[in-house]
Amino acid sequence: MSTSTTGSEIKGETVTAAKEQTTAGVDKASVTELLERGRTMSTPVLRAAVDRLAPPMDTVAAYHFGWIDAQGNPSAGDGGKAVRPALALLSAEVAGAGPETGIPGAVAVELVHNFSLLHDDLMDGDEQRRHRDTVWKVHGAAQAILVGDALFALANEILLEQGTAEAGRATRRLTTATRKLIDGQAQDISFEHRETVTVQECLEMEGNKTGALLACSASIGAVLGGACEADADALEEYGYHLGLSFQAIDDLLGIWGDPAATGKVPWSDLKQRKKSLPVVAALAAGGKASKKLGKLLAADAKAADSADRNDIESFDEEEFATRAALIEAAGGREWTSQEARRQYATAIAALDKVDMRDEVRRKLVGLADFVVVREK
Amino acid sequence: MSTSTTGSEIKGETVTAAKEQTTAGVDKASVTELLERGRTMSTPVLRAAVDRLAPPMDTVAAYHFGWIDAQGNPSAGDGGKAVRPALALLSAEVAGAGPETGIPGAVAVELVHNFSLLHDDLMDGDEQRRHRDTVWKVHGAAQAILVGDALFALANEILLEQGTAEAGRATRRLTTATRKLIDGQAQDISFEHRETVTVQECLEMEGNKTGALLACSASIGAVLGGACEADADALEEYGYHLGLSFQAIDDLLGIWGDPAATGKVPWSDLKQRKKSLPVVAALAAGGKASKKLGKLLAADAKAADSADRNDIESFDEEEFATRAALIEAAGGREWTSQEARRQYATAIAALDKVDMRDEVRRKLVGLADFVVVREK
Repeated sequence: MSTSTTGSEIKGETVTAAKEQTTAGVDKASVTELLERGRTMSTPVLRAAVDRLAPPMDTVAAYHFGWIDAQGNPSAGDGGKAVRPALALLSAEVAGAGPETGIPGAVAVELVHNFSLLHDDLMDGDEQRRHRDTVWKVHGAAQAILVGDALFALANEILLEQGTAEAGRATRRLTTATRKLIDGQAQDISFEHRETVTVQECLEMEGNKTGALLACSASIGAVLGGACEADADALEEYGYHLGLSFQAIDDLLGIWGDPAATGKVPWSDLKQRKKSLPVVAALAAGGKASKKLGKLLAADAKAADSADRNDIESFDEEEFATRAALIEAAGGREWTSQEARRQYATAIAALDKVDMRDEVRRKLVGLADFVVVREK
Repeated sequence: MSTSTTGSEIKGETVTAAKEQTTAGVDKASVTELLERGRTMSTPVLRAAVDRLAPPMDTVAAYHFGWIDAQGNPSAGDGGKAVRPALALLSAEVAGAGPETGIPGAVAVELVHNFSLLHDDLMDGDEQRRHRDTVWKVHGAAQAILVGDALFALANEILLEQGTAEAGRATRRLTTATRKLIDGQAQDISFEHRETVTVQECLEMEGNKTGALLACSASIGAVLGGACEADADALEEYGYHLGLSFQAIDDLLGIWGDPAATGKVPWSDLKQRKKSLPVVAALAAGGKASKKLGKLLAADAKAADSADRNDIESFDEEEFATRAALIEAAGGREWTSQEARRQYATAIAALDKVDMRDEVRRKLVGLADFVVVREK
């Protein structure tokens, strides 16, 4: 089995160890094909759905998805990695249906995902997403709220208008996932104002914020294809742990990622004082670096509070570098990297609970590989 | 048939003419009873649903619903008129089911309604609702966005966890209504930035923003009770036009309402430069007052634009009184009052399409009377 992604690195840190646990990989070209298939098959339906929105929401949404620029001219923007649609189509194949059966599910999860991006960017004050100004920056807060709401509603509409019992079951799972996603964002925000967050709390938050929707993506096509509840649950388990692995990598990239690749500002997560996995793991580790980091972050929190703001943008780059180095010295970087591998292994193991064609299983493993070994 | 609401006025303007079209009213005590029943039967389920939210969203939602004050102490706040839950329970009775069949529908529409209030108050910058500071004022913009999202998701969850085909149909109708609601808010916002809005456009916006969810409220219980699509459609028609009647009254109260009764700031709609029905009707009327009003509002818009803000709070009360008087002189107030009656009549007429017990019909008419004759 060829695995051509060997050597991929996260800013100098080889994460290829994860690959060793792959029992049945697919080559990089196949993953690219899977992602491309997800995009190609779902985007026309997604665009038609977005076209239903009343102006100017249709335009604002088109900007968010990268189909037009801020001036309204067509653009071939980077619409994101599109892991979710790829998973949704694959998931239909698990149930023995054609990938097209998963399309309404692919569109629905993309809509929910983008609803959450629109609202989270506004709540977090993030000005950049996918190398472009965020919607609230370009079109204002009201449009970011409104278009987010509209995408959320559209997601349910697209599924329910299928009018089948399967679509009803799929909508129920999507709704549960969306509620968890919102719980996760609430936890994420509250963590920024708390002095201490345990590793367990952080994992729970990330499970809600990232795991739940990936779980739904990985099962929704199967549900639409008539899979039994047990199979759908096992696929959710795969997606959930894949999501946690994905998020662990994201947390590494949020501190040590290359801004040119991620499209985020440098030290993005540190600037927002996010208590992400590397941070909470470092703080929990004990030892000299851990204690020094704890003191520094507590002082940062105090300074930010007294200035009545959540970020600490006035710091220069060197001060963030100091914090990043302490997180690494305390072992937060290594622990998070290992956690990504552990979650990856749990995800792959869940696939054994479902009877599926080898080819489909290989593709699900291949997508998981892609998620764990990435630079953006 | 006794109709004890005679003499109710909107700031001096008798709207009891609407009552004359009532073919089968119920007395005021019965309407109060219906509203009370809706509240009593749905609130415990609503509270249990809200309790599912992750902290601090549960607390923020409880504040919004008036169950606790800003300090977190229990309060017996004014939870609104609760017309929607009352309609949802009644609607179950139309289908021959008990009112309790409508409870998940009542809770779902209340959740969607309050999701929209949370987001609209933030988008519109409204600082007061039901005589209290709005959520974004007390808990910040992020919580207003997040809790709104959570209530929206909860609405679908409450319905779908019934697990029946009827619940699936109900969710589909609720989703359609929610999409229209969002379209309506988008139109409402865009109107504030436009020079001219036709009466037709305004009615369409209000049909989306207010009519759609009342339409859903009036049919959702029947759908849960197994009503056929034609009956559900007719009930939606009743609710839709009732919503337009409701909104016409709201537009009158938004200009001439007593702030002590409405809980809004004086001249609320004029301050936000809302192109509500009385305004667009006055501008469309032609004549001296209409033209003068047009010039004044155009100058207001220019002033607000140059100051880069949507409101014109720097005006003193007299300047708003001048505008209100011009709207009235141009006939905008009278036209809107008549429109409320026309929509009321259309709503009542739609009830003839559905076979239901006389007693249920009388209650639906009674609720309609209540909506049209009110001071807040």
